[in-house]
Amino acid sequence: MAPAAITPESSGTTTPTTATASSLTQAGIKHNQSNGNGATGDLAPLDASSMTVEFTKSPRTVPEPMSAETMAQKTCTDHMVTARWTVEHGWEAPELKPYGPFSIMPSASVLHYATECFEGLKLYRGYDGLLRLFRVSRNCERMRKSAARIALPDFDPKSLEKMIIALCAQDGAKWLPKERAGSFLYVRPTMIGTDAALGVQRPREALLYVIIACFPDMSKSLATPAPPALTGEANGAAKPQTPGLRLLASGEDTIRAWPGGFGYAKVGANYGPSLVAQGEARARGFDQVLWLFGDESYVTEAGASNFFVVMREKESGRLQLITAPLEERIILEGVTRASILELAKDRLAKSQNDVEAVEVVERRFTMPELVEARKDGRLIEAFAAGTAFFVAPIGLIHFRGKNVEVPMDGGDSGVYARIIKQWLVNIMWGKESHEWGIVIEEKSQ
Amino acid sequence: MAPAAITPESSGTTTPTTATASSLTQAGIKHNQSNGNGATGDLAPLDASSMTVEFTKSPRTVPEPMSAETMAQKTCTDHMVTARWTVEHGWEAPELKPYGPFSIMPSASVLHYATECFEGLKLYRGYDGLLRLFRVSRNCERMRKSAARIALPDFDPKSLEKMIIALCAQDGAKWLPKERAGSFLYVRPTMIGTDAALGVQRPREALLYVIIACFPDMSKSLATPAPPALTGEANGAAKPQTPGLRLLASGEDTIRAWPGGFGYAKVGANYGPSLVAQGEARARGFDQVLWLFGDESYVTEAGASNFFVVMREKESGRLQLITAPLEERIILEGVTRASILELAKDRLAKSQNDVEAVEVVERRFTMPELVEARKDGRLIEAFAAGTAFFVAPIGLIHFRGKNVEVPMDGGDSGVYARIIKQWLVNIMWGKESHEWGIVIEEKSQ
Repeated sequence: MAPAAITPESSGTTTPTTATASSLTQAGIKHNQSNGNGATGDLAPLDASSMTVEFTKSPRTVPEPMSAETMAQKTCTDHMVTARWTVEHGWEAPELKPYGPFSIMPSASVLHYATECFEGLKLYRGYDGLLRLFRVSRNCERMRKSAARIALPDFDPKSLEKMIIALCAQDGAKWLPKERAGSFLYVRPTMIGTDAALGVQRPREALLYVIIACFPDMSKSLATPAPPALTGEANGAAKPQTPGLRLLASGEDTIRAWPGGFGYAKVGANYGPSLVAQGEARARGFDQVLWLFGDESYVTEAGASNFFVVMREKESGRLQLITAPLEERIILEGVTRASILELAKDRLAKSQNDVEAVEVVERRFTMPELVEARKDGRLIEAFAAGTAFFVAPIGLIHFRGKNVEVPMDGGDSGVYARIIKQWLVNIMWGKESHEWGIVIEEKSQ
Repeated sequence: MAPAAITPESSGTTTPTTATASSLTQAGIKHNQSNGNGATGDLAPLDASSMTVEFTKSPRTVPEPMSAETMAQKTCTDHMVTARWTVEHGWEAPELKPYGPFSIMPSASVLHYATECFEGLKLYRGYDGLLRLFRVSRNCERMRKSAARIALPDFDPKSLEKMIIALCAQDGAKWLPKERAGSFLYVRPTMIGTDAALGVQRPREALLYVIIACFPDMSKSLATPAPPALTGEANGAAKPQTPGLRLLASGEDTIRAWPGGFGYAKVGANYGPSLVAQGEARARGFDQVLWLFGDESYVTEAGASNFFVVMREKESGRLQLITAPLEERIILEGVTRASILELAKDRLAKSQNDVEAVEVVERRFTMPELVEARKDGRLIEAFAAGTAFFVAPIGLIHFRGKNVEVPMDGGDSGVYARIIKQWLVNIMWGKESHEWGIVIEEKSQ
């Protein structure tokens, strides 16, 4: 049993200072930044305008896009942004400073109780030479929700957005140079409980930070065939020659999230516990786990991505783009997910050229439904969508001992995945001017 | 969406070296220490006999038992034991060295994906002057299971046990002096994924460590009444004058663990997500959350402790000591839980003196069952049991808007909780010679 903290917690009523309230009101937002963490009185808000800057004295070399160094996913850019919070004083001034290790006590909350949450987004080098973030405000808002779920402090999401933008502006020119149009860096805002007290309690200290990592293009690496050792048909292994993602549907003994839990939040506690199932799926020749829920085998997420299917409705014959709903809070409210739904509603409501219109539907759906649609010829295509894998067509789902092949329109992607992906590519890399693409004014190198 | 690692994982088949196999066989244990982490070949096992020792040059002062410093739960002893693991080489030699901060990369697995597990046990200063651990081998075996669930490397539990004992032997004489008979220190073995790669994958580096913290005696602090601000009856607040633990039963919107999840493992992912509900319970004047499961309101755990109830069976009138079963794997397999079940089966099977015999039962039971038993006068007592809270009598459970008062035998504990606690006290602090009390040969100060 873990010890429970005996420090009494207050009822969480706080009175924001006048300064806090006014500065947040200016940004159009008013938050109780204490987030129930027990302190009352004058708590400083997260304030990006007070950020201090210290440049690195040992700048590092930028690795090549598909080099071993990039593939290892360990290389970060020259700088990071951090902001410390304490229950007594609130947020300290953020610091933009050289990237490097943290000094963390062995008894720190994050190392024992998973008091941690994060975000993932990309910094894009556009074909027009400009740097862009994609709907970064959505990531900052979601990070607030994740922090609240995991008992970490609240903050002004506009300030986090400014911290992210400041770091991208600082390191973008060097680490994502203009000759690398069409590529990206991976941005990782994170918050951890740094309180060194071992009691099971809300952390009384925390650290919010943003780092930027060099990442390979997942969509390219996925196109490579599975290694020879994994090509066997035995043990339910997928055929390696199948194009697209190969998913292994989870069994009844492995559940990712549950109503009343925390599946909707981007907290560490959703990821570590999924690694064993993911490892087993890989060992059997699949790319990811397709997470099902309940006796009905409801389809929820594919790996750490949202799942979309295009099916023709049985009775009406109408073509529908379907994804699982958010109400039960067992799936992540993906930024890519929301963007796809919005674009599809806007641009696929009517048939155009050779592309049939689709109805956009958020509803529960089951694997047996997909299997039946496949048999009837009503399953058109399926894809996973998220920041890391972007829009990834699905070629096969292994469910209850059988491989369900998902149509691919004869190529390496279904029609709708291809169209939707291209729309997003255009916005992210500046081929289409759109309010979702946030241009970053980078500092010259 | 978080990125998925693209590093292919092998099928986890490893060939232990001869040295590994023989040294483990000597300890009566044979493990595949690679634990499916992908490396093949000569992996070094965790080997406590290769431990290096470096003593602190700045020894610290031992705080008083109930001082502010002890209450803060941040003070650890002079030393710690660490052992680093890599997928390429296995376990490096453990190090006993001065307690101090770790240097952890901002991209480390543990800070993002909750790749962490731990154990909690106590070091007791006996009334006979000896230092003891209680069934430490059980904690080491459970830690192996937790590590496997959270994709951390396997290890020889006997070696972990030796590392724990070495640290207790080193720091015990000074930090738990002989004049403090009847007190304890808190021992915290921990493992974290230190791999600095941001991809969502099994960590390829890990750190196993043991620290010892100065902790207040929870059972004493719990006897103090709730603070005045929390004494109101409004909002379902418990009566502060109730003796024993005051529990708030969880609602349908909050679930601790589910079948197919990881509730049985001592992983960080079970703790951080419980803090919000725990904080709400505290703010309403309760000590802990009573975690229910399912539409039937099955009783699972109380806070981070196991839950026991003594009830008279409706039909037969037999007295039973009941706790939730382990089969569904939604509750922790507590060492205190197992010890209570074993002692009760052994020593309470027959009536003696004024104490009626009880039948020991592991089965699912519901809150409505408890409520009905209370109405019928069949509810005798209830208690929570775990390392931190030890054996803590329960005075009240708030369930669906009503307070269910749990009988207390007129004092501050029910009869069975008092008897069982005394048996454990006798073993832990050396009043009874028992194989569960492991005497530590401490080094003179």
